[in-house]
Amino acid sequence: MKNISTSVISCDEMKLEELKSPAQLKEITNGKLDSLAKEIRQKIIKTVAETGGHLASNLGITELTIALHKVYDSPADKFIFDVGHQCYPHKLLTGRYEMFDTLRKTGGMSGYPHPSESPHDHYHTGHASTALSLAAGEVLGRKLKGKNHHVVGIVGDGSLTGGESFEALNHLGSLGENVLVILNDNQMSISPSVGALSLLTNKFRASLTYRAVSRNIGNFLSKLGGFGEWVVGVGIRIKSALKRILMKNQYFEQLGFRYYGPIDGHNIGLMVAFLKRIKKMKGPILLHIITKKGKGYKYAEDGPTEFHGTPPFEKGNGHKAKSSRSYSKVFGESLAALMEKDDRIVAISSAMVEGTGLSIPKSKFPKRVIDVGIAEPHSVSLACGLASAGMKPVVALYSTFLQRSFDQIIHDVSLMKQPVVFAIDRAGVVPADGPTHQGIFDLSYLSMIPDMTIMAPSTSSELDEMLKLAFSLGSPVAIRYPKDKSNEADEPAEVRLFKAKKERSGENVLVCYIGAVSLQVHAAALLLSQIGIECEVLNLRFAKPIDWESVKNSAEGKKLVITVEDGIISGGVGEKIKAELTDTKVVNIGVNDEIPPVGTRAELLARYNLDSAGIAKVIQENV
Amino acid sequence: MKNISTSVISCDEMKLEELKSPAQLKEITNGKLDSLAKEIRQKIIKTVAETGGHLASNLGITELTIALHKVYDSPADKFIFDVGHQCYPHKLLTGRYEMFDTLRKTGGMSGYPHPSESPHDHYHTGHASTALSLAAGEVLGRKLKGKNHHVVGIVGDGSLTGGESFEALNHLGSLGENVLVILNDNQMSISPSVGALSLLTNKFRASLTYRAVSRNIGNFLSKLGGFGEWVVGVGIRIKSALKRILMKNQYFEQLGFRYYGPIDGHNIGLMVAFLKRIKKMKGPILLHIITKKGKGYKYAEDGPTEFHGTPPFEKGNGHKAKSSRSYSKVFGESLAALMEKDDRIVAISSAMVEGTGLSIPKSKFPKRVIDVGIAEPHSVSLACGLASAGMKPVVALYSTFLQRSFDQIIHDVSLMKQPVVFAIDRAGVVPADGPTHQGIFDLSYLSMIPDMTIMAPSTSSELDEMLKLAFSLGSPVAIRYPKDKSNEADEPAEVRLFKAKKERSGENVLVCYIGAVSLQVHAAALLLSQIGIECEVLNLRFAKPIDWESVKNSAEGKKLVITVEDGIISGGVGEKIKAELTDTKVVNIGVNDEIPPVGTRAELLARYNLDSAGIAKVIQENV
Repeated sequence: MKNISTSVISCDEMKLEELKSPAQLKEITNGKLDSLAKEIRQKIIKTVAETGGHLASNLGITELTIALHKVYDSPADKFIFDVGHQCYPHKLLTGRYEMFDTLRKTGGMSGYPHPSESPHDHYHTGHASTALSLAAGEVLGRKLKGKNHHVVGIVGDGSLTGGESFEALNHLGSLGENVLVILNDNQMSISPSVGALSLLTNKFRASLTYRAVSRNIGNFLSKLGGFGEWVVGVGIRIKSALKRILMKNQYFEQLGFRYYGPIDGHNIGLMVAFLKRIKKMKGPILLHIITKKGKGYKYAEDGPTEFHGTPPFEKGNGHKAKSSRSYSKVFGESLAALMEKDDRIVAISSAMVEGTGLSIPKSKFPKRVIDVGIAEPHSVSLACGLASAGMKPVVALYSTFLQRSFDQIIHDVSLMKQPVVFAIDRAGVVPADGPTHQGIFDLSYLSMIPDMTIMAPSTSSELDEMLKLAFSLGSPVAIRYPKDKSNEADEPAEVRLFKAKKERSGENVLVCYIGAVSLQVHAAALLLSQIGIECEVLNLRFAKPIDWESVKNSAEGKKLVITVEDGIISGGVGEKIKAELTDTKVVNIGVNDEIPPVGTRAELLARYNLDSAGIAKVIQENV
Repeated sequence: MKNISTSVISCDEMKLEELKSPAQLKEITNGKLDSLAKEIRQKIIKTVAETGGHLASNLGITELTIALHKVYDSPADKFIFDVGHQCYPHKLLTGRYEMFDTLRKTGGMSGYPHPSESPHDHYHTGHASTALSLAAGEVLGRKLKGKNHHVVGIVGDGSLTGGESFEALNHLGSLGENVLVILNDNQMSISPSVGALSLLTNKFRASLTYRAVSRNIGNFLSKLGGFGEWVVGVGIRIKSALKRILMKNQYFEQLGFRYYGPIDGHNIGLMVAFLKRIKKMKGPILLHIITKKGKGYKYAEDGPTEFHGTPPFEKGNGHKAKSSRSYSKVFGESLAALMEKDDRIVAISSAMVEGTGLSIPKSKFPKRVIDVGIAEPHSVSLACGLASAGMKPVVALYSTFLQRSFDQIIHDVSLMKQPVVFAIDRAGVVPADGPTHQGIFDLSYLSMIPDMTIMAPSTSSELDEMLKLAFSLGSPVAIRYPKDKSNEADEPAEVRLFKAKKERSGENVLVCYIGAVSLQVHAAALLLSQIGIECEVLNLRFAKPIDWESVKNSAEGKKLVITVEDGIISGGVGEKIKAELTDTKVVNIGVNDEIPPVGTRAELLARYNLDSAGIAKVIQENV
């Protein structure tokens, strides 16, 4: 074992743990960079096995990241990763080796670029399809400031299906300023990419032997030197019978970019050669590289969707630690049963089929589960069209991503009172992914929309019943639940339309809660009962409309009302109850005007007094 | 004058006013259709001169609409207009001649497609770039239902720059189902189109003589019959040196569409011939037509942006009725003055440069006013990038369209506490345009976002001061104001950070208001004073953070607190004040859980008791 305290590093002996700055890469030969890639890959596999995190995408982008840092000068030159979960090699190359073991842990290293963590991270990019817009801002700002550093956006083929990426390409192409967009093409977003663009890519690849070399790329390469043997693609001006290739390239040329590629994204030497050349070019350039998601870890190569974002797993065999049913799974199973009975039900997601549990109905009804790729606004208008055509659509998205469809929910769904069901996963505080992925706003931004019904189940059985009810309503409905193991009820729930349920009687305090925090609320009530504070517990079930009759009846004669919701207080259920109950003291428990940081779900619930101890404490302090 | 009660209509004598159903068009010759187009155009010019409304786009789409109704069978075949403000000819052809004079009037005919108005209107399409997503839903629903009607999306080149249009094209292309997309290319969205795509179109047109006929389109036409002389464009498979044309076509082919065009969109006979042929074809087809916005009305042809949406005007000379300064103009003038002093300020809009008043600074600082086309999500992430690069960006959008950037405001701006200023025009109830254009949600959806400062000016002077303050804050700021003439103050406002302003003292009632409803509030206070009810008036100025100290001081000892805001109550300022002031009766005035219908601004304010009479009434009822 080499002594890691060595301060002078020999190029031939470069070890990852000794790399403090990407500037050190400048002197290293390409051959040594390959062994560095191996080290990075091993470190990522070992760490993610312990902490959970994004695996496959990071194994796929390792060589590209090394090549970028070899050729460009970060942070003066700016790399913007889209989506940012593929930033692990970037973090390891920018002085974060030692904190890497704290990946996604509370107070530890973020799983996404994080500006306060390093000057090499310029933006939070937890949501897809924003990087090229951010790059356009950097490019315009650079021009107006008279600077001349490089701006590089690194975007996956999945992120490219998001409309904002198109808007940004169209803008960047018209600006004509220097910018490099690297298309990291692994044929995957979270689920396999969909849409005409990616289908063409697939056909294109099938038709290629990865050996075709065009005259034009040949010209390009003759200037580069002896890299021809690595080439796996063709250039833009090729006059060839391969129409698909021509078209693929022309898509970007059409938008004002010069296109190069596709080239092997696991070949550092080739990429370094291309990047050095491109660095000297003017105008918008697109470099298309082909990578394999999960590269170098067999289980992830074979199951890249499973290992997209993964909980801790046993490194030896790739098995995941066991857990009881998640709400996502409950939703998937319930929906599959309903689709069995009603062939008008059709499910839509935006590259979240696995995560939302839709893979369960998809296996049975593949034609009625539609993955539109990363395209949340489209998914909601699409649902509106399907409803108008007589179908019963359910849109299953994570809460944080449904934010992208806010206008479509208002303009296309609410205004027409369309019977669209929203199944909102990852609602409330979200473990590990950090601030970009919190689902805390949905109760508030949906409550303000007319004709919307909003439910939140406290158990798996309630979720099942709410879903049945949702499809029977004939108007817009949202059901929201967290990323968590589901609470199991002793007996099947009976959900009555627009009605809350009194779950415990008590004379001192009324606790009104909504959603999956039921265990915490009841535990707090038990705790307090032992010290003589008796809580009545009302499970609201409906955030909109609120069952005012039950709330007011239960509040009658209480000296304190506590509201408990796993979401932002502003505009939420608690604030409305506080505004309405003018004769009683009301205290709101919820997320108070901040976006939650990284943490486990238990830690984040505790942060906002949403755990049993916190609920009990707030009641004790106010009663 | 012909007798309009004639029930049997001769084909040769067809008059617009006698047309009760588009089915009547089937028997009419193309020559007669041309005279019908003239009648439609005259009717639209005459009506819009009286009522105000969208002129140029409707004059541009007249012939296309006739051709569509001639060839297809609406409403069984479904037309979806993107954006819907170009639906006037469609309305005149589908039995709405007699109600046409009530265009955009309260209780009258909507200026947009309106499903409850006619079976020929399938969706509200007031926001751009949704039609192709809706069409995709129709196409999927048709497939799942086993039906076989036609679905036609009509989309302008401006709407095509919106990311959702791209998402939908990508999806439709991959589906491979029958669908017709008509690209109505007039080189305009609201402002002239921007972006690489449209630039190519412009170059393309400049290079064409409108006479080029390719071999392939020739083949196509030889099957059609003798329409060759009308052709102004080329087909997709042409082997030509006109690379720009090839690329333009291949953009759509790349996305899975067969492309035809461009053809003259004012030639009914030609379009009928093309549509008849296309109607028999399989798969996704794109027909590209070229039209002139404002066609047939000289003033509108010369100034299509001015006549995009227009108030009533004098038909004789095209002059508009005079009005005092709007808030949009105040903003534009204030911003221009600030840009003069600080060259870091840069303004962004999404095809709303004219409407937001940005044309004023644009005339002085063309490089620092950026129109990204219809691309609201991009505009906000772009601003984030510009801020990160050291600039001071202001994003000027209408409230209803800023809804499209909700996620970008959270994810890109708030999370990084970026100093982006949002200048929100058309906030609150919006006259004439109806439900799709209401700006009632912004106070609520912005209030829930951490680190956001929200202001609303009560006068032009306050807007000016707030804008100065906004650029000095170094964090996200929103300023919102209505589509209205501005209130003028007697003396310059002095806006103190996060502070409300007591504008009137009174011992009985406290009125807390925010924004431009100041005149109504003070008029109500005067009215009530005459009957012995003395109101204290607090101008909140800041919706976030609320100046609780001032609110609580003023509320002290009052028997009633009234809140007044031109926005939805849920999640707004009033609800927060009601939740906080537990010892005083609080009544909220605002928009109560509905999306406002068509009306003048005065009518809509009155509908929600936001006029002086309404405010006085609510106070009297509750005091």
